[in-house]
Amino acid sequence: MYLEEYIVLQQKHMERILISDLKNHLEKEVVIGASINVVRNQGKVAFFDFRDRTGIVQGVIFGKPELLEASKELRVESVVSVTGILHARPEKGVNPNVQNGDIELEITAIDVLSHAEVLPFELEADLNIDTLLDNRPLTLRRKGEKAIFTMQASILNAYRNSLIKQGFVEFQAPALVGGDAEGGAEVFKVEYFNDHKAYLATSPQLYKQIMVGVYERVFTIARIFRAEKSATTRHISELTQMDFEMGFVKDERDVMQVLETVVRDVVNHVSEAHQHIFTELAVEAPKLPTGAFPVLTLREAQAILGVAEEPDMEPEHERGIAEWALKEHGSDFVFITRFPTKKRAWYTYEDPTEAPFSRGFDLLFRGLEINSGAQRIHDYESLKAKLESRGLDPEKFAFYLQAFKYGIPPHGGCSTGLERFTMKMLNVKNVKEATLFPRDINRIDTLLSKNDEHAN
Amino acid sequence: MYLEEYIVLQQKHMERILISDLKNHLEKEVVIGASINVVRNQGKVAFFDFRDRTGIVQGVIFGKPELLEASKELRVESVVSVTGILHARPEKGVNPNVQNGDIELEITAIDVLSHAEVLPFELEADLNIDTLLDNRPLTLRRKGEKAIFTMQASILNAYRNSLIKQGFVEFQAPALVGGDAEGGAEVFKVEYFNDHKAYLATSPQLYKQIMVGVYERVFTIARIFRAEKSATTRHISELTQMDFEMGFVKDERDVMQVLETVVRDVVNHVSEAHQHIFTELAVEAPKLPTGAFPVLTLREAQAILGVAEEPDMEPEHERGIAEWALKEHGSDFVFITRFPTKKRAWYTYEDPTEAPFSRGFDLLFRGLEINSGAQRIHDYESLKAKLESRGLDPEKFAFYLQAFKYGIPPHGGCSTGLERFTMKMLNVKNVKEATLFPRDINRIDTLLSKNDEHAN
Repeated sequence: MYLEEYIVLQQKHMERILISDLKNHLEKEVVIGASINVVRNQGKVAFFDFRDRTGIVQGVIFGKPELLEASKELRVESVVSVTGILHARPEKGVNPNVQNGDIELEITAIDVLSHAEVLPFELEADLNIDTLLDNRPLTLRRKGEKAIFTMQASILNAYRNSLIKQGFVEFQAPALVGGDAEGGAEVFKVEYFNDHKAYLATSPQLYKQIMVGVYERVFTIARIFRAEKSATTRHISELTQMDFEMGFVKDERDVMQVLETVVRDVVNHVSEAHQHIFTELAVEAPKLPTGAFPVLTLREAQAILGVAEEPDMEPEHERGIAEWALKEHGSDFVFITRFPTKKRAWYTYEDPTEAPFSRGFDLLFRGLEINSGAQRIHDYESLKAKLESRGLDPEKFAFYLQAFKYGIPPHGGCSTGLERFTMKMLNVKNVKEATLFPRDINRIDTLLSKNDEHAN
Repeated sequence: MYLEEYIVLQQKHMERILISDLKNHLEKEVVIGASINVVRNQGKVAFFDFRDRTGIVQGVIFGKPELLEASKELRVESVVSVTGILHARPEKGVNPNVQNGDIELEITAIDVLSHAEVLPFELEADLNIDTLLDNRPLTLRRKGEKAIFTMQASILNAYRNSLIKQGFVEFQAPALVGGDAEGGAEVFKVEYFNDHKAYLATSPQLYKQIMVGVYERVFTIARIFRAEKSATTRHISELTQMDFEMGFVKDERDVMQVLETVVRDVVNHVSEAHQHIFTELAVEAPKLPTGAFPVLTLREAQAILGVAEEPDMEPEHERGIAEWALKEHGSDFVFITRFPTKKRAWYTYEDPTEAPFSRGFDLLFRGLEINSGAQRIHDYESLKAKLESRGLDPEKFAFYLQAFKYGIPPHGGCSTGLERFTMKMLNVKNVKEATLFPRDINRIDTLLSKNDEHAN
C-alpha cells in the first residue's frame, strides 16, 4: 500500500522524536509516533493534530495529491508514524496559547500503525456516566479523564514520598483475609481452597498495627473492598486507601501533624507540577492556611453551625464547616476531633478523662471527609475487653493480638481515600469519575445483568 | 507505681530523642522511647539494649537499688520510655563494631508503656517455617525478617522511581474482575452482589494494555491472586506484581531495555542504601555486568547447556544459564527470549517471519525467573482471531477490545514479582519468607482447618 511504502523508507533510518522535543529539530526531517487527535480535510490541504504522551503538534499535507488522497482514510484515534519536515509557522499562523503553536510539521509520509474504527461518539462530548464507563478504554483518552488520573498518580506518589521522608516504611497489606476483622462491615466472600471461605479486606487496619511493632512507622497503599448494597455516587466496591500508622504518639495530634505535613507536601507538589491541569479544568489548586490546619472538636463544630449535638456530622454540616474554615482560616482543609467513642471503630482509644469522646479525627477537604484516623488502644488487656464489649470474640483475633501481647508502643494512624482525595482536588462530582475502572453494585467494567455470563 | 512516678516527672518536660541522634546529646539528660531488645540483670547492675526504629543503644542501671529492683519485671519486647544521662563509654568498654558502641545511657527512670509477656521462643532462634508464620506479628521483629522487608520496600520504591523517571504514569489496576481473562488460570471466585460471580485478578494485563492507549507508558503495582492447588515453596495465593507496559515499541527489545534500566536502578539503589543488610545477612549485592545484560534465545540457552530443544526451561536449566551468565558476563541477570508461541499467553506477538517463536522474554535473576514480558498483538483483527484460535470468545473481551478497535500503538510490557525479586536479592530460600503475610493452600495468617471458623 501506498502509505506503508512511504514509511518503510523512513522507518529504517530514523528514530522517533517525542512531540515535546520537536522544537529542537526546526527545518529538519523527523519521525513522530502519535494518535490522530483531530483531522480536518479541506480539499487541497489536510490538517492534523497529532498527540503523543508528551503533547500535541499540528501537521499539514499540502501539494502532495497522492498522499492527500490516501490520507482521507485516516480517522481520529488511528495511531500513526509520521515523517515530515518541521517548520516555524508564519507569524500570522502562530498560536501562543497552545503547545507547539509556533511550529508545524509538513507531512511527507504517514504509516498507519493501528486503524481506528469510527468512534461511537465525539470523544470530548458531554457524556452521561454510563456511556463514560461503558466505553472506558476510549473515554479515558479524553483530556479531562487523562487529567484526573495524571493528578491521581501524582497525589499517590507525593503522598508516599512525604511519608518515606518522614521515616515511614512501606509494606504490602493482604487483600485476602481470614475473617471480617472490623466486625459488621459488609464484606465480600471468596471461595478459597478446600471449601474454606476467605474474605476481601475492608481495611489494612490490623496489619498496620502489627507492623508498628516491627518498624514503628509504616504505611501501605491498600486495595480495600466494600460490599455495601448502595448505589449512590459515593459508593464503589473496590477502593485504594493510603494508610499509615506510627508508634510513640502522645495522642491523636501527633498523627494529625504527620498527616498535615503529607497533605501539604501533596498540595505543594501538584500545585507546582500540574498548574496546567487546574487551569484546563478551571479548578483552583487547594488553599493551604498560613498557620496550621484548623482543628475543631465535634462539639465546637456543631456550636459554630448552631446545630444539635448529634454523635456525627451530616454531609451538609461538613460542607458548612468547610465554608467556615475557608472564610476564617483561608483553608480548604479542616480537622474534626473528639467524636463519641461509640461512633468509632472498636480499636479507637478513649482516655478515661475524656469519655464519652475518643481520640479519633476526620480530615475534611472542601467539605468531604477524605481521611479518618485515631490514636488506638495499645494495651493488650484493654483491647481484649473492648472486643468483648463490642460482641467480638478475642479468640478470633488471636493472630493480631500477638502484636499487643508482646509489647507495642502507644500508636495511632489514619487512612486517606485516594479516589476521594482526587475527586475533591479537581472538584469531580462523582467518585466513580475519579476511579479508573469503578466497580459498584451494577457494574464490573460492563453492566452486570441477570442473564450475562457472570451470573451463576 | 514506682516506675510510673519516675516517668511522669520526666515526660511532661522532655521530648523523645531518636536513638540514632543520641550521640549529639552527650552528658545530657534524654528520654528515649524503645523496645527492650536484650536485658541482662547481673545483681547490682542491669544492662539493657534498647531498640527504636533508628537503632540500638545500651542502657545501664547502677547504684539505684529501688530502680534496679523494679526493673526486674522488665521483659524483652516490653516497650518503655527511658530517662537517663548519656555518657561516653570508658575506652576499654568501646565496641567500634556496633551502633552507639561508644556511648551508654545511665538510666534514671523507666516507664513501661506496654508490657510484654514471656516470648514463646527466643526471638532470634532458628525457627521452622510454621512457627515463623504462626507467630508473624512477633517474628517479623527479628533482625533477618526486618531486613527482608526493609529491602522489599526499597526495591518497590526504586522500581517505581525508575519508571516515573522514564516517563511512565502509575495507575490502579482493579483486583475484582468480571471474568477469568487469561483463560485457563485457576482463579478465586467472589460472591458479588445479587448472585453475580466476580473473580480475583490473576494479572493486570488487560488493564495495562488499555492504559497504553491513554498514557502510552504506564505501570501499576498490582495485587494478584492465584488459586493453584499447589503447596510448593514457590506457591502463594496472593502476590504483588510490578507491571509496566509501553507504546511505540519496535519489538520486545525496547521493553527489555526499559526493564534493564529499572533493574539497574534498583540494584544500584539498594547496594548503596542497604550495604549493612547485605553484610548482616552475609549475602552479596547483585552483580551487574559492565555491558548490557546478556540475552540468549531459548535455543541458544539450550545449546549452551547441551540439553534438548524443549519448549520451555526447567528450573535446573535456569540455574545452569545463571551460572553461565555469571561466569561469562559477570552478571546475576540474564534474559531468555524467543520461546515457542504456543507456550506463551495468547496476547503475545508472533511475527510471521519468526514463527513458531514469539516476542516474549523472561528475565532470570540468580537462576529464578523474576520477570516475564513480551511485545503484544496490537492489531484488532489479529487479536480477535487469536482469541478464537485459543478457544476464547471475543465477545467476552469486548470491553478490553475497545482499546484496539479505536487505535492502539504497537506495545509491549512485562511483570516483575516483588516477592521473587526480594527472595533472590537476599538469597531467601522460600518465597513465603519474602512475603509479609503469605497466603497459601493451608494458611491465611493462621492454619486453615476443616473445623475452624473459616470453614463453611
